[in-house]
Amino acid sequence: MTEFTATVTVRLKRGVLDPEAETTKQALERLGFELSALRSADRFELDLEAEDAASAEARADEMAERLLANPTIHDYDVAVAQR
Amino acid sequence: MTEFTATVTVRLKRGVLDPEAETTKQALERLGFELSALRSADRFELDLEAEDAASAEARADEMAERLLANPTIHDYDVAVAQR
Repeated sequence: MTEFTATVTVRLKRGVLDPEAETTKQALERLGFELSALRSADRFELDLEAEDAASAEARADEMAERLLANPTIHDYDVAVAQR
Repeated sequence: MTEFTATVTVRLKRGVLDPEAETTKQALERLGFELSALRSADRFELDLEAEDAASAEARADEMAERLLANPTIHDYDVAVAQR
């Protein structure tokens, strides 16, 4: 078994309103910063043991499907690196 | 001016308690997943215009310092890509 870190990034689907990101953007603009858009996402770093990178990625993917992301409103991607 | 996307990842410093991550880890374990650690982070994707990548990165860095991260409890890193 090898140790891997799987990084799951969960973002809102395009078209889903993100009032927190909008508020953060406005706060930055009030501080004088110029930006055309701000998107927020959640990032989970999972340390796990697996036979190989493919099986680590499959497990992280299942965790995203079942708990970390809500498929109605979220997209996610998974990246795996050996530790 | 060129369009850049700066990605700011904000994570808790080592040693700062993260009860939300701990709860998420326990929920995954109750679903039958095995993992040795889970860390959560916030990710902000900022679309902005700048002369070059270095100045885009400097501005994203300043936004992180002033608003996106709390230097007492957070570390952050900035990555810039041309759009």
